[in-house]
Amino acid sequence: MTAIAPPDPSIRSAALALSDAQAKPVGALGRLEHLAAWVAACQGQCPPAPLDDVRVVVFAGDHGVAAAGVSAYPAEVTPAMVQGILAGGAGVNALARAVGASVSVYDLGVRVLEGVPDEVQRFRVGPARPIHLEDALTQEELNAALEAGDTIAAEAIAEGAQLLIAGDLGIGNTTPSAALLAASLDLRGADVAGRGTGIDDEALAGKIAVIDAALDRVGDRASDPHQRLAALGSADIAAAAGFMSGAVRRGVPVLVDGLIASVEALLVDEVHPGARSWMVAGHRSTEPGCELAQAHLGLTPILDLQMRLGEGSGAVLAVGVLKAAVAALREVTLLADL
Amino acid sequence: MTAIAPPDPSIRSAALALSDAQAKPVGALGRLEHLAAWVAACQGQCPPAPLDDVRVVVFAGDHGVAAAGVSAYPAEVTPAMVQGILAGGAGVNALARAVGASVSVYDLGVRVLEGVPDEVQRFRVGPARPIHLEDALTQEELNAALEAGDTIAAEAIAEGAQLLIAGDLGIGNTTPSAALLAASLDLRGADVAGRGTGIDDEALAGKIAVIDAALDRVGDRASDPHQRLAALGSADIAAAAGFMSGAVRRGVPVLVDGLIASVEALLVDEVHPGARSWMVAGHRSTEPGCELAQAHLGLTPILDLQMRLGEGSGAVLAVGVLKAAVAALREVTLLADL
Repeated sequence: MTAIAPPDPSIRSAALALSDAQAKPVGALGRLEHLAAWVAACQGQCPPAPLDDVRVVVFAGDHGVAAAGVSAYPAEVTPAMVQGILAGGAGVNALARAVGASVSVYDLGVRVLEGVPDEVQRFRVGPARPIHLEDALTQEELNAALEAGDTIAAEAIAEGAQLLIAGDLGIGNTTPSAALLAASLDLRGADVAGRGTGIDDEALAGKIAVIDAALDRVGDRASDPHQRLAALGSADIAAAAGFMSGAVRRGVPVLVDGLIASVEALLVDEVHPGARSWMVAGHRSTEPGCELAQAHLGLTPILDLQMRLGEGSGAVLAVGVLKAAVAALREVTLLADL
Repeated sequence: MTAIAPPDPSIRSAALALSDAQAKPVGALGRLEHLAAWVAACQGQCPPAPLDDVRVVVFAGDHGVAAAGVSAYPAEVTPAMVQGILAGGAGVNALARAVGASVSVYDLGVRVLEGVPDEVQRFRVGPARPIHLEDALTQEELNAALEAGDTIAAEAIAEGAQLLIAGDLGIGNTTPSAALLAASLDLRGADVAGRGTGIDDEALAGKIAVIDAALDRVGDRASDPHQRLAALGSADIAAAAGFMSGAVRRGVPVLVDGLIASVEALLVDEVHPGARSWMVAGHRSTEPGCELAQAHLGLTPILDLQMRLGEGSGAVLAVGVLKAAVAALREVTLLADL
């Protein structure tokens, strides 16, 4: 429970003052000015360096609840999509190429995944057990997953990463995310469950029942964030939370994607109060829990384009806006020099 | 009053079908799927070609109403900002570089502008007269400005432009735009006037009075779009309308910026019913008239980032999203190939 100091307030002020001195009406670039000032404050320099090294790390894993019919797709899709990302053909790859970000993927707990580079499975923990029946992870598995994410963040930062995004991949993963959100905010399944990949009314009712059963099963243990994560989460979700925590604790900003990343951000900010000040929400997904989590964090999404793909894709799309904001702060002439 | 047929509906359907066949849940890329289908339909090919040639043309001019105190800045800022764009140091330049678009600027009626390349003044008509006192343009001036915009669009398209954006530049220009909007939608000054570059309450009251005086002066003549444009507009606004009209009549899509471009889009769609189907709104500015005009056109902005810079900047920022949408439609693997 270590508090995190916000990005450098004096640099933020200097960046806003620089923006005000540029050849444009004061405030005319709207939110871009605040985004650029945030990047500057995170970097500790004004103007900020161009965002040339932005990385999306997709955390993949399977979820025991998938067998309960909470998804429109079978669990076999998870390993296929890992292969799709490795081949560069998933949605996140196309969007990342378009905005100039790099993509990597780690298998934290895909049930069966073969024929991938060793690095992809370097931190493998195992699939999440069905949360309505038993805890998703043991405490040892949770610790391994959290540490995996932290290590991945540390290595990326050592290599020069300036901005990190956690992406999610795994059939069934909106169910544990929604359960974690409900436990965090003292809500019930009906408040947080969405249609995920596109389930019908009957499957949605089943998903709500699974979430409520999980909440009832875990009870008061859910008030502790680590017990909550072990009971209701998964290795991929825990690793992503460890990754985001590892980024902000090392002074590297995080762009938050949709439901799953927003729930992870909420957990990170609970364990490290103030962590949210190193985060910006890239996109508001159509999952109802996404808006709840972002609102609770006070994060206003840059984009709202009805996306619900996961993989970090919404945040990746917002990288283009963030890069442009930084470019404006770096490149627009001063009014005095006009 | 020639109607414009919408972008190819069969190509649009094919693009949506392609999107549905990709390795992602159906509809999971949200609005990106519809944006990419629109680009495909405009191009008449599925998948669409990458958007490698996107051009912003900034139409600059001065407005007689500026002398009535409707802006927070003196008219001398107009030529200085033209020079700023030519030097690459304006907001639109920085954003265009960030998203990969090109910028050019034309002087349609800056009061005094010296030392610029001849091309910049090739279509110069002259400053707009104060619309609360007299018509902004003669019919001859209007025709010259409309034709200038059409020629600029035609030349850009001949050179390969795939997507065009009209930008605005000129102290005082939100006053004629708001007046044109009020005349188009049968509103009054108080309904459409915003704070533009950042005017105070007193100046806003004066701006409303100028708009109302102009509307009262012109009376029923404003029901005809060309008379309205000559009476209440300006050479830069007319040229931008001619440019947007020239684009859509030649089958090239237009990304619409804030208040001024949205008002121009409304005029173009009135003269050429259906023109709006070749347009997407890039950004919703903070000017109240922008939302009114976009809503009347049924255009939902891609971005809403509280920008109010003009220069086409909001639409330029949205180019990144549109390029990414096209990339996703072109590059994401088919589910069948996963």
